Formats: sequence, structure tokens, C-alpha cells
Amino acid sequence: MSHNTFGQLFRMTTWGESHGPAIGCVVDGCPPGISLVAEDIQVHLDKRRPGQSRFTTPRQEPDQVRILSGVFEHPDTGEQVTTGTPISLMIENVDARSKDYSNIAAAYRPGHADFTYDAKYGIRDYRGGGRSSARETACRVAAGAIARKVVGGMNIRAALVQVGPHQIDRENWDWDQVGENPFFSPDPKIVDTWADYLDELRKTGSSCGAIVEVITDGVPAGLGAPVYGKLDQDIASALMSINAVKGVEIGAGFDAASLTGEENADEIRIADGVPQFLSNHAGGILGGISSGQDIVARFAVKPTSSILAPRRTIDRDGNETDISTKGRHDPCVGIRAVPIGEAMMALVLADHFLRHRGQNG
Amino acid sequence: MSHNTFGQLFRMTTWGESHGPAIGCVVDGCPPGISLVAEDIQVHLDKRRPGQSRFTTPRQEPDQVRILSGVFEHPDTGEQVTTGTPISLMIENVDARSKDYSNIAAAYRPGHADFTYDAKYGIRDYRGGGRSSARETACRVAAGAIARKVVGGMNIRAALVQVGPHQIDRENWDWDQVGENPFFSPDPKIVDTWADYLDELRKTGSSCGAIVEVITDGVPAGLGAPVYGKLDQDIASALMSINAVKGVEIGAGFDAASLTGEENADEIRIADGVPQFLSNHAGGILGGISSGQDIVARFAVKPTSSILAPRRTIDRDGNETDISTKGRHDPCVGIRAVPIGEAMMALVLADHFLRHRGQNG
Amino acid sequence: MSHNTFGQLFRMTTWGESHGPAIGCVVDGCPPGISLVAEDIQVHLDKRRPGQSRFTTPRQEPDQVRILSGVFEHPDTGEQVTTGTPISLMIENVDARSKDYSNIAAAYRPGHADFTYDAKYGIRDYRGGGRSSARETACRVAAGAIARKVVGGMNIRAALVQVGPHQIDRENWDWDQVGENPFFSPDPKIVDTWADYLDELRKTGSSCGAIVEVITDGVPAGLGAPVYGKLDQDIASALMSINAVKGVEIGAGFDAASLTGEENADEIRIADGVPQFLSNHAGGILGGISSGQDIVARFAVKPTSSILAPRRTIDRDGNETDISTKGRHDPCVGIRAVPIGEAMMALVLADHFLRHRGQNG
Amino acid sequence: MSHNTFGQLFRMTTWGESHGPAIGCVVDGCPPGISLVAEDIQVHLDKRRPGQSRFTTPRQEPDQVRILSGVFEHPDTGEQVTTGTPISLMIENVDARSKDYSNIAAAYRPGHADFTYDAKYGIRDYRGGGRSSARETACRVAAGAIARKVVGGMNIRAALVQVGPHQIDRENWDWDQVGENPFFSPDPKIVDTWADYLDELRKTGSSCGAIVEVITDGVPAGLGAPVYGKLDQDIASALMSINAVKGVEIGAGFDAASLTGEENADEIRIADGVPQFLSNHAGGILGGISSGQDIVARFAVKPTSSILAPRRTIDRDGNETDISTKGRHDPCVGIRAVPIGEAMMALVLADHFLRHRGQNG
Repeated sequence: MSHNTFGQLFRMTTWGESHGPAIGCVVDGCPPGISLVAEDIQVHLDKRRPGQSRFTTPRQEPDQVRILSGVFEHPDTGEQVTTGTPISLMIENVDARSKDYSNIAAAYRPGHADFTYDAKYGIRDYRGGGRSSARETACRVAAGAIARKVVGGMNIRAALVQVGPHQIDRENWDWDQVGENPFFSPDPKIVDTWADYLDELRKTGSSCGAIVEVITDGVPAGLGAPVYGKLDQDIASALMSINAVKGVEIGAGFDAASLTGEENADEIRIADGVPQFLSNHAGGILGGISSGQDIVARFAVKPTSSILAPRRTIDRDGNETDISTKGRHDPCVGIRAVPIGEAMMALVLADHFLRHRGQNG
Repeated sequence: MSHNTFGQLFRMTTWGESHGPAIGCVVDGCPPGISLVAEDIQVHLDKRRPGQSRFTTPRQEPDQVRILSGVFEHPDTGEQVTTGTPISLMIENVDARSKDYSNIAAAYRPGHADFTYDAKYGIRDYRGGGRSSARETACRVAAGAIARKVVGGMNIRAALVQVGPHQIDRENWDWDQVGENPFFSPDPKIVDTWADYLDELRKTGSSCGAIVEVITDGVPAGLGAPVYGKLDQDIASALMSINAVKGVEIGAGFDAASLTGEENADEIRIADGVPQFLSNHAGGILGGISSGQDIVARFAVKPTSSILAPRRTIDRDGNETDISTKGRHDPCVGIRAVPIGEAMMALVLADHFLRHRGQNG
Repeated sequence: MSHNTFGQLFRMTTWGESHGPAIGCVVDGCPPGISLVAEDIQVHLDKRRPGQSRFTTPRQEPDQVRILSGVFEHPDTGEQVTTGTPISLMIENVDARSKDYSNIAAAYRPGHADFTYDAKYGIRDYRGGGRSSARETACRVAAGAIARKVVGGMNIRAALVQVGPHQIDRENWDWDQVGENPFFSPDPKIVDTWADYLDELRKTGSSCGAIVEVITDGVPAGLGAPVYGKLDQDIASALMSINAVKGVEIGAGFDAASLTGEENADEIRIADGVPQFLSNHAGGILGGISSGQDIVARFAVKPTSSILAPRRTIDRDGNETDISTKGRHDPCVGIRAVPIGEAMMALVLADHFLRHRGQNG
Repeated sequence: MSHNTFGQLFRMTTWGESHGPAIGCVVDGCPPGISLVAEDIQVHLDKRRPGQSRFTTPRQEPDQVRILSGVFEHPDTGEQVTTGTPISLMIENVDARSKDYSNIAAAYRPGHADFTYDAKYGIRDYRGGGRSSARETACRVAAGAIARKVVGGMNIRAALVQVGPHQIDRENWDWDQVGENPFFSPDPKIVDTWADYLDELRKTGSSCGAIVEVITDGVPAGLGAPVYGKLDQDIASALMSINAVKGVEIGAGFDAASLTGEENADEIRIADGVPQFLSNHAGGILGGISSGQDIVARFAVKPTSSILAPRRTIDRDGNETDISTKGRHDPCVGIRAVPIGEAMMALVLADHFLRHRGQNG
């Protein structure tokens, strides 16, 4: 059962609410002997951290991670390394302004989980969205940083490819640009368009959706499993579990529906003794198992549901009312979803790497 | 671990290869006292069964299911009911013509799992695709038929909404039409277009992709789980695990990326004392938990990779060669994916129904 | 969840009732490339098979196992080997005489699961004990035979060390004797005592308990896990899951309570560069992890509850009644528990072997 | 997979080393709406806490637990209640004197996990036993306190029934006495014998084993599962997972081996319309499912391996050496195992209560 746990052999269990004292996670199953200090994790958390540009929420969370267990000084090298026991990570909530949310204690914000949490549990921590807040994703990024070290040879990168209706031009794709703009855009030419579009939305208190693409090279052929526990299945599960995600696709994805078999099936040649696929409509996965090509996945993020415009809704007691969500919010949560997408991909790959090694040596 | 098992409390484990003596599955966790005879399952298998129109493979498999365990005569009613113990289902493989596949023993068919299975296991049953054959999906449909009985009040239906580049007109949607044409189309006006398009493809030995939509009404609010084990996450996992699926979306799906927060968030009113959402961009799921609205999911199926046209590939020994897949194949595997999509949705819902009841009573 | 599944990476799921058409299991997670034919399994089933001496039930079941999936001819050697996909095993029920059990449809046999199955499920297949019959253990032995091949270097052996109040003399322990008597006794001198004791019990329609010891050599140091998923924990779980088992101990077991720390802790020396423990009170497991010493486990089997003497009980409707179980039964189910104990140990070790390899390479 | 997780629906994941900054656990799957404050947990931790008599380790740990997530003020009652989201508990390590253990960094203490952890992971946190320290059991007791609230109607109690060779007289059993002596003894007459025996052992720096009995009344018939996931199987797993436990038995346990079928099978009558068993050799479990009788389990704890007497051992480099464990230790860890046994039983019962409700409503 996995209501708050992700993964099988390499697994994380997360806990915490947006405005509780802290959030955190337990990473279990990590191989021993891997060098790990807090800074290895912090660098990834800093990419997800809010308040770094005018395009994300102004909430100021330093997101300083503490490693509470599972590492120890190596007797020979003196380095801090994993010991194979559970790694407990904790991040304190610092800038929780619970008063901002007092009006949502009773009324359900459209597009949010307020209504469904109450329907399920009869109670919810409404402060800042409680458990359904995207704040939980800091734990994913932290655990993902450890997962990356487990699959060190794999290069996991993500980028924003669409904001609202504005897509990048793939001709301009340059990975080096991703760190050079506040949107993780691989296309420098779209940056102004996105900035203008988001500025406009921010003025009106509105929001927009986005699409993130995650590409991983260096994945050996053979990871995954047939039938259930397919690599693409677990990637779909991982990415769909991110807050606000409404769609996931692999390789050609939904466009595959419009292709013919000739167009879609990637032909194979040999180059320097190594299989070479002549295209990658499969997105690096055939029959649920990695082919050695780049793993290519995309996911769609819906617009932030917290918007300034008053919306019709109901309250706990079934009365009709209107709600306007002031608080501090990202106009486009898709931006900060970029490092989260990388983290979830890392978690899936680390898990399958260990699972493959378990069965196949 | 779940390499061949799907679900947590209501779970199926499938086994079998396309050209072995039989395929089957074990359904575990089924509540006791549910009326169940083979015919309840057979009716769904018959919808998936090949050879029923010129648009599916001519392989003739009666797909007669046997219930080997887990049911017994009720002492009072005399009815066959589930006993709460595992239900073993078996379907014999009758029309396996292994000679058809002799040329694929050595060479890897582009777009198929041949290469990746060999990369992972070093050996594969190549006859008819072995374990990676879509024949395994008969077990999903069989198990799904039992799952439907567990969630009897929910109405799970699917339809084909796109074949190749040709989409239905949603204005014409009529559920009663789905059973009246060989495509499970809800739009009778697209049927001729699809038939002509597929006839053309069949002539040339080509194939095409498709999109299936699954809609479920009658799902109570509260099913699902926060963070991991989200209902949409498990639906994504379930649908992506179907052979040839390359994308999954919920509600507005990828289109949500282009919407604003005002457009996307579904407002709520009260009608007759019951919450009424004024739209359903969420596809019936908020924060991973069902809202009581229709659950709406779509998945994209890639074109059948088995095509007549010779394709460049390599063999086991790394030699370059060409391959043309004769055999018997569906020109559009998306058609028979319709009952499979329903079955996977039923399995997810039955599982979450029991999981919710376990935690929340 | 594991109501009918045992194991994590190497796992079996069993199904079937005593008097249904068949019983069987699905073994999942088996490494590929392991030579496997039905006869490899049959040899172990034959050890458990009933009707081989006057000390076990006269039910005649050939227990012929069929392998329905998961094996294929190796392309190079022509040998049948595992493919890494699920291995489905089926054993038909041949000698089911359901009329023997008609009187237990309504009344609950003391010591049996009749009452509790009804309390849980409201219905049960009462024929021959249905799902709670020891017939299910044939599946364990079959799956265990595959597990043995996964951990080929480990030597898993069991013996009967006590029947009723009569214990073996450990001075006489000779593994070669175990196959030479109908009791799997390692002490040839106790055989007559046990035979006389059981003959006496059989005459009166009574029954007795027994103790089985399982010893495994060749287990490398390092298998197991800290805290939960300890090797001894999983052995306890495995052995306690066998029908009629009421106690499990490792190494010194319950006797450890009476020892001092000096007596109990096994000292270590080096011999030929290899750690040598000077005693084995630990039974080969320290902190949940194998030490490289022999793994020693014992389990107690209660007397067969099916006895001829009339016993006071109640029926489904709450009426008091008497019951006498005629049918065909083992006077001492502990005898046939010997190969079952070996099988369960093999399953635990195979699982932990793969789990260790997954995390630690 | 469950290397550091216990349970299926009601589950805890523990983390932390003896001398790290803290230990803790995440309890997941808890039903919502259960009143919970730290004091509910603290009362049980205080029973396990060291340093409360001369018969336990003098290490002074206040074991103050913090609840970091998963509870919230009920909107109507104002009470702190569970929300159904993960409950994170943390206990700081206060009195860690790492210098005490410097000599065990290199040498392996006989009877301890030092050797096997190194064999498995190649590294271990040796300070205070690190992850293999019984300090981890504080987390079990904390999680168990929550589990108790889930199964409020069940009365879970444990007592010490043997210390070294000295058993209680069952005629003297009085639950009210358990809290009145430093041993959790239900027999007041044995207390002086145990005190004298332990004082003698302490003087010589030796240690002894013990046996704990856990008895639960108020368990409804029907909890558990057939075949795997049996209630007794999961109790065996739970109790064997406690540090230093070498044996587990249910009801008559190992003594069942010496009984006849007539003696062992508990007859049933009806009293006031309710089934009444005339004895309880089964320990409240038949066929893996609770019968409504008291659940009776016992477990044997080996002597503390940390003893003053020098013992022969080896070091990391394979050199022979002697080791004497000074530090601060319990002469009989069995004493503090009493509340731990209760906690593990509570965890199993809460889990099976939810599992039963999931499948059977």
C-alpha cells in the first residue's frame, strides 16, 4: 500500500502539512556507500524553492534540509556515506502565514482538493492547503537528489516547453539555456513571450497551465518490467502523482494516434557494434522496458486554482458562496514543476535499477 | 512488488504467453458473497475477442474462461458466489500458429518488445510475442469483469474517439451507438470514415493509432488517496500498462496547459442539497480524490508495430537485416483496447473502493 | 498486501480449494535462464504426497504438476529455462471424495478453521476443508522447488525431531537416514517408537503433534534486513503460515531465555582467513542478517484436529451438537510438514537473496 | 518491500540510529477523526523508557515524542484528531555518549549485529549499535500507542513470565500486579527471586534471557486471512522482528507437539447465544483467523549480548581479539520488551482490523 510512499526497492515515504512545524521524508532501500551530504540535496531544493523570481509565489522558505539518519563517516575515507539504513530528511516550515487562509477553513476553493479531502476524511488541515499543498513536492525533490546519486551514469534533465498557449520552438532547444532564465526554458527566444504573458496574468490575479518535458540519457537497455511495473507505467504514475498534473505521455505520446505503423516504429541499425535506433517515437521504452535510447516523457500541469477572481462555490455546510483566493501563489505552478519532474523520474529510475539488479543480477 | 500483479487490496496477478498452453490470472482480495459465474466474465471477454470483424486480427480464439477456485454454492440461495479466497481464471490458447512467427525468433521487430526483452532477460518466448503479446489483456478483461461486480453502482463505459487522424464529433456522442458498430464509436457518423481509412491501411499492410475515452459515472466522492496512491495516478498507471499505450490524460488533460485558472477550475453550486459542479475540467478527481463527478480518462494507442512493409532492423547477433511481419494482426489495436480500458478502470475503482473502506470505514 | 501471496521479489501466489478442479500457484520474479522442467518440481512434490505410508492420509493424489508458462527452450542449449516471466503451476485434484465431508457443511469441527472462515466471510467451501486444507501446501512445495534452484549453493534440509512426546536423540543425527524411514527422522533409533505410538493413535482415531527442524548450510553472510524484513522475522512468518503450526524458533530459541550472556553469545575466531563461530546459539542470524553459519529453525505442529472421537461443537445456526470427523486424515500432519518446511525456507532465502542483490549489488 | 516498514494498511516506517540526532517514525493509513495528543503516546513510551530501575540501563533518555504532522483541530469539537494523513513522530536522542563505544568501531561484539551489518553493507554506524540498537523500539511503542486507539475495544496487555530459568506461577497471575513491580510481573511472589537473580548477574556484568506473554481480549472473530497474511503469521513476524527475540508461539505453542487431538482441539458450546470455547489451546486463532477468544502469544528474548566478561572475537581486518562491552546496558532486555510486545500486537491488530474492513465491509 502506498498512500504516502512511492517506489518499491528504492522508496520514499513523505509526511507533513504546508503549515505544520515541518515536512519531511524517509528514503529507504538506498544502497550503502554512496557519498551524501546535505548540500547534495540542497542544490536541487534551491531550484524548486519559491520566491526566486516574480513568476513564483513570494512565500520565503529557505527549505534547508537536515539529514537525520542513514549516513555515517566512512571508516577509510572519512567521507559521509549512506549506510543502507533509512535516510530521514526534514525541512522546517518557516514562512507559514496561516492567517492568509482563514477564509478557506469553511469554503471549498474550486479546483482545489478542499472538497474532496473533506468528503474522504471529514476533516482537513486547511492551512495553506495542508497535505494537498505543493509544498510536499520539496520532499520529492530531496529524495530525488539521492535517487540521482544511485543512478549516477544517467543524465536526468527537464525543461518547460509550453506556458499557457505558447510553445517553444524545438529548433532552438539548448540545454545550456535552461538555467539561464526563470522558466527553465530550453528556448531563449520564447522567454520574453512567456514573461509578458505571465505579467499580464499576474496583474489580473489569474493563472495558466504549462507542459514540462523530461529527457534522460544514459539509461541502459533492460530496465522495467513486462505487463505491470512497466517502466512507462511507473513513469506515468510518478508524474501524474505531482500536484496539478492532468496528462502524461511518453515519446510520440498522443500524437502516436495519428501516425501509421511505418512512421511510428523506430528502425534499428548497428553503429560501432552498438544498436542504433533511427528515430525515437517510442521515447526509449518498448514493451515496458528501456531500449537504451533517451527516455522522453512529458506532463501537462493545469493552471493554479488559487486565483483572485471571485468564484462560485459552496461551504462545509452546503451553503452557496463565492470565494477569492488571495494568499501568495504561483501564477504558473508548471514552472516549479520542472525540478519536481526530474526528481520523480530519478526516483522511478533508481527503483527500477535496483529491481532489475534484484531479478537479473 | 508488482511485475505481474496489479492492485493493492483488489488485485490480479496474470500469467501466460501468447502461444503457451493457456493464459490466466488470480484475482485476490475479492469481497465474499458476490454472485459470480463464468458467463458474467465471458460477456466482457467476447467484446475483446479477436476475429469479430475485418478490422481485427483473424486469429480465432474462443476465449472460453474457466473459474478454477474462489466460488461456491451459497448455502441459502444456491447461487454461485465468491468466497473471499483467490479466484483463479484460465483461458486456453487454441489457435496458436507458431510457425507464423518463426522469422522473428532471431530478428527484432521494430516497435516491438523483442529487443528489450532480450536485453533484459537474455531469452524470450518469441512465439506470437510471448509474454508481451496483447493476448495477456484477455486476463485484464476477465479480472475487470469481477471488479465491476464489486463496484456495481458505478457505470464504467469506454468508446473510441479517434482512429488515425480522424476524430469523432462530440456533438454526436450517443452511448447507445457504441455497441452498434465494429469500432465502439459513440458517433455513428464517423464509422464510414474509419472503415474506409482502415480498409486502405489493411490493403497496404499498414496500421494506425487511436484514442480511447473511458467515462465512469456513479463514483462516490472520497475514493483515492493524497500524494501517492492518488486515484488519477493509479488510473494513469493502469492505462499506461496496456500494451501500445503512449499517453494518458484526465479531464481536460493536455489541453489544461492552455487554459487560465478561471477557465479551468470547476465552480460548485448546490442542487437539491447535493454539490453540483458547473463543469468537469478536473475529470472527476481533485487532489487525487474523486469528487463525485464523472471520472473521465483518455489514452492514446500507438499504431500496431506488426506491419507488412519491410523494415530495417538487427538480429540477436547484431547483424543488420530487414523484417516484414506477416502473421495475423489488428490493423488498429486501439479498437480492442476499448473493453481493456474499461477493465483497467474497473480494477482501479474496485481497489480504491476497498482501500477507502479499509481506512475510513 | 499478501493474503494469498508470499514473498517480495521472489513471490508465489497460490489458489485453489481441496475439492475444486485444481490447485496452483504463480511464481513471479524468478531470475531468467534457470533450467526448469516439471520433474525438478515433481521430485519434491512426491516427498509431500499423501498415501505413501500407513502414517499419512490414504487420499491418493498423484500431484502431477504442469508448468503452464514462464519457461522456454534456450536458443543455444535447447534446454527448458525460465524466461523471467511468471511461472504458472497447476495440480489437478483427482481423488476428491466430497461426500465424506457432508456432515461438516453445517457443523464446525473443533480445532479447524470452519468457524472462523464463516465468521469472516459468511460462506466457505467446506469440502475437504476448502481453502484451509493442507492441500494448499502442495503449491508451497512446488514453488519451493523453483526457489531452491535460485539459491543453488544453499543446502536446505529438514527432519522430524519430535512426534508427540517422543524426541530424537541428537547424538544419533544422521542426514542420510532421513530418506530411509517414513517419518523423515534423522535418528534411526526412534523410528520404532514413533511407529508404535502412531499405530496406537490410529487405532483409536486420535492424532498427535510434532516438531520439525530445518537446517540450511551454504547461506552467505549478509542476507536479511535490519528492523523489519529481518531474515528470522520472515522465516517466522513463513513457517507460522504453514497449517497447524503453533510455534517457531531460531537457534537456541525458547531455551535462550534460560541462558546467560556468556553462554549465549557465539564467540568468533579466524580459521584459514575465514570467520569461524565457536557455537551457533544464534541459529545463523544476528540482527536479522545471516552470519554465514547454518540457519537453524524449528516449528511445532499441533495434532491433526480431524479425529474420530465425538467432540462437542456448534453448527452454523448456533445449535449445540457433536461431531466426529471420519474422512481420511493424517494422524500426524507434522510428518508431511517436513518437505513443506524446506520449501518455505527456500522461498524466504530466494527472496532475500534477490532483495540483497537489489540493494547491495 | 518492508525493510523499515511494518504493516499493510496501518503501517509504520521507522528511521534513526541510537546516537544520531533523533529517531522517529511515520505512521500511515490511520483512520481520520481519532483523538490524538502527544500525551497519549508518551504514557506508553514512559513504560519502555530506560533508567527507571536498577534492572535497566542507566542511559537517561526522556523520550519526549513530538507529533509533526497528521493531526489537526476538529472544527466542531476543538479536539486534536487524526486527519488520515501520515503522522510523523520524532524523539530526540539526548543522552548519547558516543565515546563509550569507541572500542567497538573495529571489533565485532559476539551476539551483536556488528559482524553481519558489516558483511551486508560494508559500513555501519557503530555508535551505540546504530540502527541495530534497541533504541529503535521506542518508535514501535509510539506507533503502537496510535494503533491501540484504532482498536479501542481490544485490551492488549503483556507481562513477563520468565527471567532466566525462573518462571512465574500461573496460579498467582494478577494483571493488577504488572504495574506494581519493576519487571511487569503478574506474579508478585516471583519478584524477589528475579530481583536477587538479576542483582547477582549485574555484579558480574552478566545478563540473562526472558519470556514475555501478550494477551489480548476483545478481538472480534474474523480478523486475519487465510494462507498468507494469517493473523498468527503476522504476529510471529511482528514479535520476531523485535531485537533479541529467538522464538514465538501462539496458544499451546511448542507444547502442542506433545498433545493428542482430543486434548488440543478446543470444544465449543453456546452460552447466552454466543459461541463459547471450552479451552484455548489455539490461542484465539484458527486457520489464521481470530475466533473471538483471547489472542495469546509468547516470545523468548535472548540474554543481552553486551556483557562485561571478555569474549573472543575478530575485528574488521580479520584479526583475532577479545572484547568486553562496558557501556550502559540492560542486564535483561526482556523486561523492557514487555511494552514493545504490546505495541507490536497493537500494530498487527490495527492493520488486520483495517484489512478485514477493506475486504469484508
